[in-house]
Amino acid sequence: MMRIDVLTLFPEMFDGVFGASILGKAKDKGIVSLEAINFREYSNNKHNTVDDYPYGGGGGMVLKAEPVFGAVEDLMAKKEGGSRPRVILMCPQGETFTQKKAEELAKEEHLVLICGHYEGYDERIREYLVTDELSIGDYVLTGGEIPAMTVIDSVVRLLPGVLGNESSAVTDSYSTGLLEYPHYTRPAVFRDWEVPEVLISGNHAKIEAWRREQSLLRTLRRRPDLLEKAELTDKERKWLATQEQNQTT
Amino acid sequence: MMRIDVLTLFPEMFDGVFGASILGKAKDKGIVSLEAINFREYSNNKHNTVDDYPYGGGGGMVLKAEPVFGAVEDLMAKKEGGSRPRVILMCPQGETFTQKKAEELAKEEHLVLICGHYEGYDERIREYLVTDELSIGDYVLTGGEIPAMTVIDSVVRLLPGVLGNESSAVTDSYSTGLLEYPHYTRPAVFRDWEVPEVLISGNHAKIEAWRREQSLLRTLRRRPDLLEKAELTDKERKWLATQEQNQTT
Repeated sequence: MMRIDVLTLFPEMFDGVFGASILGKAKDKGIVSLEAINFREYSNNKHNTVDDYPYGGGGGMVLKAEPVFGAVEDLMAKKEGGSRPRVILMCPQGETFTQKKAEELAKEEHLVLICGHYEGYDERIREYLVTDELSIGDYVLTGGEIPAMTVIDSVVRLLPGVLGNESSAVTDSYSTGLLEYPHYTRPAVFRDWEVPEVLISGNHAKIEAWRREQSLLRTLRRRPDLLEKAELTDKERKWLATQEQNQTT
Repeated sequence: MMRIDVLTLFPEMFDGVFGASILGKAKDKGIVSLEAINFREYSNNKHNTVDDYPYGGGGGMVLKAEPVFGAVEDLMAKKEGGSRPRVILMCPQGETFTQKKAEELAKEEHLVLICGHYEGYDERIREYLVTDELSIGDYVLTGGEIPAMTVIDSVVRLLPGVLGNESSAVTDSYSTGLLEYPHYTRPAVFRDWEVPEVLISGNHAKIEAWRREQSLLRTLRRRPDLLEKAELTDKERKWLATQEQNQTT
């Protein structure tokens, strides 16, 4: 069983996410253990403070080293034998999280995710305690909790037995390197809008060809950066070059 | 007051996030209204299904058009006067979410975020109902709920009156275009690890210079892609070029 511990000042933020949908089911099936731990319990001062003013001045508060070291070391002490956990700091300065990183983390036994609030972390946490620093994207959030949920969701869905349909983990966007083709379901006519004829033709070769073409076109229009790394045939690359020309003229 | 409605099959996932920390406070202060609405209530069939098999075959289920159109149109009908909401589809095929997009959305009166699960959305939702499609990054998640939380958190923190210290919204990473410099707080010596001397020197000019240098260096090492768009002096660009050379030799 994989173990994931989250250190946070707001453990209640995780209740809904850890209990519902796929994460809730993975927990119930015994595939993963998910805990949100309040590291305020590890502050060693009488006021239970976990933050303090920055050396050198400036606005905002800085998360102190002691409670974070205390909480991580307590988790490690309680663990029976085994390897050191991956200790992951959620922060805007971190490496940008990707599907490849999710696949890497899904192979670990134990993850500890640290969520900050306030202006920043005492740098000694970063230097001497953590193994990874992750950012989920180039936008500013109020804390590391939602980013931690993001990482956990993407990792847990990769664990064997979590997704019902094993193929789903593979065919989703980003796993194939291309954006997905359009999907349609009943009714065949919704208001005045019809499902493309090819999809109700019953001709599987034509359907496959249409889907591949749509997937290529959508990627070209929306995320051309993904095409470089995608596995395409020479014929497809030539066809895309023609499409690109049509687009710009 | 800004209004944000989320359409989801798992409204309970939002309880913890909407109630805690900055979002909870913004709600209590009357700056934003946050609602998670189960669009299963808008399915018009007796089994309350919201998904169906894809036309053309293939694995996975597709989210039907009817309940999503029904839920959005009901929200719009209940609204007194005013403009149409921004209707945002959370999906891997969307535009990559950025701080600039957060700033744009923070100017709106009403946002409706649609969270899918299953293999995909019926394409007619995308074509005829939504105004924006957003992805929070290049990784696969089990649904749009955590991405919706991400967008909401980043937008709400920008609303006037939400953050106590008005400067915080501006000086964070990504707002300045550079990664943040290292922060330190008490104790000055934690275990054997000392705070850099300059920060306890009391010399503010030196402290500012050190921080700027650290910020530039960290950005160079971790996210050189951000340097292109950052506002740097000519002197700083030259200095960084020297640093880059030292790094590679």
